[in-house]
Amino acid sequence: MFSGAQISLYPMTGDFVGVITAALAALDPYRDRLRIETDDISTLLVGPPEVLFPAMRDLYAHAAGTGAHVVLHATISRGCPGEPDDPICETSSYGIRAPLEDRKTAALAAVAEAPVLDRRADAQLSLYVMGAGDHMEEIYGCIDFLKRSGTFDRSKNFCTRIGGDSGAVFATIQQALCSFGPPNGHVTIDLTVSANSPSRR
Amino acid sequence: MFSGAQISLYPMTGDFVGVITAALAALDPYRDRLRIETDDISTLLVGPPEVLFPAMRDLYAHAAGTGAHVVLHATISRGCPGEPDDPICETSSYGIRAPLEDRKTAALAAVAEAPVLDRRADAQLSLYVMGAGDHMEEIYGCIDFLKRSGTFDRSKNFCTRIGGDSGAVFATIQQALCSFGPPNGHVTIDLTVSANSPSRR
Repeated sequence: MFSGAQISLYPMTGDFVGVITAALAALDPYRDRLRIETDDISTLLVGPPEVLFPAMRDLYAHAAGTGAHVVLHATISRGCPGEPDDPICETSSYGIRAPLEDRKTAALAAVAEAPVLDRRADAQLSLYVMGAGDHMEEIYGCIDFLKRSGTFDRSKNFCTRIGGDSGAVFATIQQALCSFGPPNGHVTIDLTVSANSPSRR
Repeated sequence: MFSGAQISLYPMTGDFVGVITAALAALDPYRDRLRIETDDISTLLVGPPEVLFPAMRDLYAHAAGTGAHVVLHATISRGCPGEPDDPICETSSYGIRAPLEDRKTAALAAVAEAPVLDRRADAQLSLYVMGAGDHMEEIYGCIDFLKRSGTFDRSKNFCTRIGGDSGAVFATIQQALCSFGPPNGHVTIDLTVSANSPSRR
């Protein structure tokens, strides 16, 4: 199983390079458990969900802490048949092939245990489950989980909005990726997380 | 059939509001053929691909013309079973159920006829085809089309990089959405387009 994300950080300030460079320090505690490659559009993080999501969360929270309007975008994937297995991705996060309701319950419990970072995150995500005839059932299951997660904001066309403390928000997204779709299936998330938007002030 | 995109424009400058506001004028020629709704994270464009992609292209090109480092992100979708039909989306873009090779040939011809805007675009996209047992065959077909499109840059984990004139780049993405996956299928694209990145200078 291969898992990871292409992530980008967009600080809406003339000092965007400075904000990005400073925020990268937040990845230091995770570097030995991730493979990281950067180009001019995005940074690839390869690793298991239990490392990937806290790393993205801390990167986001650090950049948001500057007070600038900052957006993190991530193209997150697990189980793509076109990607080779990688030992760094080894995980038990995808659990057992449990009934949908049991997976929702476990996902809700995991979000309830998320740390509190005192840094707000407003996010929207689209979950894609490939190669399964019942992909909409898994997506509706995930949407029901999101609605009960405590972070639900509203449904939009093509995506779902969530918001709240960064700890709960990133835990919710991690559970969306890990708990829905087949354990060995190809599941992806298109994620946008926004901080300090002047449109919210 | 329902189609559209959630789009966001990220100008990496202190005057990001000014850049966004000015660029929105580029949507004016398309407004009567699109439904447009904005919140603090993204702007929804609902309409057929032949309107949607030129509108995104012109919005991007206008913002890129400021010289600022600007990124456009779009969550693009057609045929989501959870979305209601909308007459504004009516189109013949998804063509007939032709063999994969014929669809590639037609897509390449469409890209060759794209207008030249003299504005560079560097992009990466992930194509997702849902609910079909052969989704990877369609994705590999699309990747082969991208490689022969004249805009191909390189394969990355989770996505494909393309680049070139904005006209060809957005025509390539339009063909990726319309020509691969079943005509009535649920197909989505996670798209990032970047202009004037200091990492490229």
